[in-house]
Amino acid sequence: MEKNIKEKSLDRATLSVLNVAEKAGVRTVWDRYAAQSPQCGFGETGLCCRHCMQGPCRISPFEHGAKEGVCGANADVMVARGICRAVAGGTASHGGHAKHMAYTLLKSARGEAADYPIRDESKLKAVAARIGVKTEGRTINEIAADVAKIALADFSEKESPLTWAATTVTKGRVETFLKFGVVPTGIDSSVAESMHRTTYGVDADPVNILLGAIKCALADYSACHMATDLADILFGTPSPVVTQSNLGVLKKDAVNVALHGHNALLSDIVAQVAGEKELNEKAKAAGAKEGINVVGVCCTGNEVMMRHKIPLATSSVSQEAAIITGALDAMVVDYQCIMPSLAGIAECYHTQLITTMPIAKIPKALHIEFHEKNAKESARKIIETAIEAFKKRDAAKIQIPDVTSTAYAGFSTEAILGALALVNKEDPLKPLIDNIVAGNIYGVCLFAGCNTVKVTQDANYTAMIKELAKHNVLILATGCASGAFARHGFMTPEATEKYAGEGLKAVLTAVGKAAGLGGPLPLVLHMGSCVDNSRAADVAVAVANKLGVDLNMLPVVASAPEPVTEKAVAIGTWAVAAGLPTHLGVVPPVLGSKVVTGVLTSAAKDLFGGYFIVETDPVAAAGKLIAVMGERRKGLGLSA
Amino acid sequence: MEKNIKEKSLDRATLSVLNVAEKAGVRTVWDRYAAQSPQCGFGETGLCCRHCMQGPCRISPFEHGAKEGVCGANADVMVARGICRAVAGGTASHGGHAKHMAYTLLKSARGEAADYPIRDESKLKAVAARIGVKTEGRTINEIAADVAKIALADFSEKESPLTWAATTVTKGRVETFLKFGVVPTGIDSSVAESMHRTTYGVDADPVNILLGAIKCALADYSACHMATDLADILFGTPSPVVTQSNLGVLKKDAVNVALHGHNALLSDIVAQVAGEKELNEKAKAAGAKEGINVVGVCCTGNEVMMRHKIPLATSSVSQEAAIITGALDAMVVDYQCIMPSLAGIAECYHTQLITTMPIAKIPKALHIEFHEKNAKESARKIIETAIEAFKKRDAAKIQIPDVTSTAYAGFSTEAILGALALVNKEDPLKPLIDNIVAGNIYGVCLFAGCNTVKVTQDANYTAMIKELAKHNVLILATGCASGAFARHGFMTPEATEKYAGEGLKAVLTAVGKAAGLGGPLPLVLHMGSCVDNSRAADVAVAVANKLGVDLNMLPVVASAPEPVTEKAVAIGTWAVAAGLPTHLGVVPPVLGSKVVTGVLTSAAKDLFGGYFIVETDPVAAAGKLIAVMGERRKGLGLSA
Repeated sequence: MEKNIKEKSLDRATLSVLNVAEKAGVRTVWDRYAAQSPQCGFGETGLCCRHCMQGPCRISPFEHGAKEGVCGANADVMVARGICRAVAGGTASHGGHAKHMAYTLLKSARGEAADYPIRDESKLKAVAARIGVKTEGRTINEIAADVAKIALADFSEKESPLTWAATTVTKGRVETFLKFGVVPTGIDSSVAESMHRTTYGVDADPVNILLGAIKCALADYSACHMATDLADILFGTPSPVVTQSNLGVLKKDAVNVALHGHNALLSDIVAQVAGEKELNEKAKAAGAKEGINVVGVCCTGNEVMMRHKIPLATSSVSQEAAIITGALDAMVVDYQCIMPSLAGIAECYHTQLITTMPIAKIPKALHIEFHEKNAKESARKIIETAIEAFKKRDAAKIQIPDVTSTAYAGFSTEAILGALALVNKEDPLKPLIDNIVAGNIYGVCLFAGCNTVKVTQDANYTAMIKELAKHNVLILATGCASGAFARHGFMTPEATEKYAGEGLKAVLTAVGKAAGLGGPLPLVLHMGSCVDNSRAADVAVAVANKLGVDLNMLPVVASAPEPVTEKAVAIGTWAVAAGLPTHLGVVPPVLGSKVVTGVLTSAAKDLFGGYFIVETDPVAAAGKLIAVMGERRKGLGLSA
Repeated sequence: MEKNIKEKSLDRATLSVLNVAEKAGVRTVWDRYAAQSPQCGFGETGLCCRHCMQGPCRISPFEHGAKEGVCGANADVMVARGICRAVAGGTASHGGHAKHMAYTLLKSARGEAADYPIRDESKLKAVAARIGVKTEGRTINEIAADVAKIALADFSEKESPLTWAATTVTKGRVETFLKFGVVPTGIDSSVAESMHRTTYGVDADPVNILLGAIKCALADYSACHMATDLADILFGTPSPVVTQSNLGVLKKDAVNVALHGHNALLSDIVAQVAGEKELNEKAKAAGAKEGINVVGVCCTGNEVMMRHKIPLATSSVSQEAAIITGALDAMVVDYQCIMPSLAGIAECYHTQLITTMPIAKIPKALHIEFHEKNAKESARKIIETAIEAFKKRDAAKIQIPDVTSTAYAGFSTEAILGALALVNKEDPLKPLIDNIVAGNIYGVCLFAGCNTVKVTQDANYTAMIKELAKHNVLILATGCASGAFARHGFMTPEATEKYAGEGLKAVLTAVGKAAGLGGPLPLVLHMGSCVDNSRAADVAVAVANKLGVDLNMLPVVASAPEPVTEKAVAIGTWAVAAGLPTHLGVVPPVLGSKVVTGVLTSAAKDLFGGYFIVETDPVAAAGKLIAVMGERRKGLGLSA
């Protein structure tokens, strides 16, 4: 079942490392996937339930065999339960991330977190104004404390909708959500409700369970939006930067420290500290001529890329490759998408794996706990640990692929509107809308999600973007989608020249020139980490409000060509609820139920306007998305 | 794989109905279990993970085959994740129940829930005093509003421990929980943290995951305690009643309405309304000579049994039997442990299945939504629907087993202390402690949990109680354990005469006589529904505090001989954390991990004093529990 190496990744650097791994006998995610194949057909189709101890139960997809679990739950119930719990897992993750931010903001405001000053006062004031916190005549800390308290209140169930949901979507969406009873009233409470709903003997109506999943997903949306807002307040709202990506950013003559995970609370501080002279002197004293070289992995990579120009070494499915280069001295992780395998691989090298969060430990890793009150101190300890590890390098094992690509990153909503304002100061959205109306921008596609071992790494992304760009679709990207695009050079002005259709090229060039780039904007506008998808939603909401239509009418789509995590399930579900046709390039575990697949891919359209498009062929997927954008253009009376 | 009918249940009434079902071709839970057998060995041992879309993954328990999931999670991580999510599911369920109560209490206090007056002002004041709400000079509604607000605040994460945890356990437990970092700071937030911790790429340390599960389980304990406190406040603290149990409580000449589920918010109101003259006249006019006959099923059955003397028809695994008697006119359900199969079985009969909660619908059931503001109105509609269904009865299908047993129910903590106060007014705990010291009471065993299709129904309960009673072990019971004991006559003074050892018999007789019963207390002290396990904990805490020792030193044990639900996993886990040796009569899905089984059955003892004893043979299990109580007695310097 072993994949041919070319089927594993489209990325030269990753392939080069995989060759090294094979020779060295180091097992990677691709080997483990091969060992797991064929995967369980019941699990793959969602026809398995372990929610009580009368199980485990399985539904036979064939003519013969059990059609109900022990309790009587049929295929539809089982599959719907599985999706609902996946959304709950995703919401809990984004919620944990956002809550962590909110507590830190509160502590910052109280003067209990000196390492976390408020860096973006104008963002703070903008968020405060949006959620109804008075700003006039008040100190920054007073405003921040109130913002943090309102954020924290969004986690528990209230008698009113979530503030972060109610204040960030169109009026039309609010009405739709109310109509179908999916208005979330708490982030953590939505997770708990989903878990309650899906335990033994509670909800047995698959459609009701799916509506519950949508409610929870809207809580996930709120958590994502909150995490982004608060990260911007604490660390600054991103603006475009130019940096490098891929494994070639590791340096033979530097202490290489990779930041991996999701929350800027860890990575931003390490990034800050890594520039300190004393630490760099220590690194040099240890033999690292170039001092300390911090690189990013995964979404933390996005966070530090857009705020600190830190290069992105790799992402998600190829995270192990960073260690196998033999040149990584420390891999520092917080939470989410951290493969437990990193510990075993680090043991084959000199790399020190460092965990930092109480809820995310790994046996054999060094645990340096990271708290608000001692953040910089912990960060320095981390860097010093990396310097010590550097001394143990085995020169014979160092094989850094000489592969890098330039990447333009950091197109936050504010940055995009700022660039548009250079074209039309009075009405920044006008150039965007005018070009959509004129057909120079056929539509907008947000790429999000992960890399999966089930698809040749980056293959779906690269095939889809070429098709879409040719058809003048404006491309936004977050999370590991950005990693894929960065590795293959799509986050550059050159890619615009090469791949964009004439209309799109003209628009990106006009804005790029107005912004002083002397050429087009990059083909992909990088909006951040996977928690930052709400930035794209904000742009869409602004356009919808400006046009006086709801989101379900815009030629805006989303795509997760290589989704993996429960977070991706949650994000995809809220994208659908937001009215976006949402493509998945991997079949989620739903095929066991006609009802669930029907609701997700069809009935959802009648209820919310958005729906899932499951298509594993990337060119066909792009075609379907273009067709959908065409339909929506027609609906708005535009040329299709 | 079909079980011989005698292997299905020990209960005559259930067996009689199963014979009817077989002849009529009605499939029940036992048929579905047979169809599911053999069950998946990966799921049974916990060696399956579906927490991301790179899976499903399975670990081979044999020499060959995959030892890691795609991400690198090994057997220990996978099994620990599964347990942690099960605890989260249980905590979410009890939390949902408790939160529902807290909102209703708040609305009651605000005058927005006329059907829910505060019925037990002294319990309200006792709870208020415990949690630090001032009572002097304040109205009942003012006090109630504050209690409700503090309760609601326990759902979101706080910077301090959960009120309902901190104020109800021994000082020693608080210290132990702090020491191991398992103090819960929010109920819903603990559920969310557990989901976050167990999603792809977060916690990969099995012991850390299990400590997370324990933290979540302690949130479950808090939720259970809160639900019990608030139910007592709203519906009255139970005191002993004598009623009947088993399917023979259904009446041929009455409109039979079964209340099934868990929350007294539904069932208590239906029980109240069912006595209304007008409705009974309607029932009689429809041909039901005896009017309306409300019966209980499952834990809701416990709630109305102890507060309204309503007979308990059946419980958990045999819930379908109530419909198959052909004499049940309406099955009214709220949430938890409601088999989805009920809808299909109801279709074979005239029975109207009625769902009432937004999060728990069943296709083909009639949904009559139950809200605080219209509770009695909905309850009346439910009864009227039952009367309409009664008219459609098929006389040929009616076969009510002529089997009932007497059951003494309603031994709340307050009721037990009240009975003891009749022996020693100054110091009610003294007679209990003196008799434990003297060895007349060898120890205390709390039976809790469900009936499972995997064990001959009631067989484990009945075999264990005989052994324990003979050894002078005081028996407490909740939930479906009570159902089992009630069906087999153990909840009577006669059972005390027949089964209790001499010492225990003398104690129960002395207290029973002092209480004016003219004979012994029943062999089983029924403490309520499964959410009421905290009542037993309260007694143990009171004894521990009085003795100046911690819970982990008392000869007190717990047993779930036939556990099913995620709630049972959560309860068992907090019982262990509370210091109780806790028996399980069914093997939970942990055998795939030596680390997890080792922590749960052994290392937990070093950390918390409590640990799991997994023993499927009931006589051997009783022997092990007696041995453990002996050890603890020795530890206290008592005769063993």
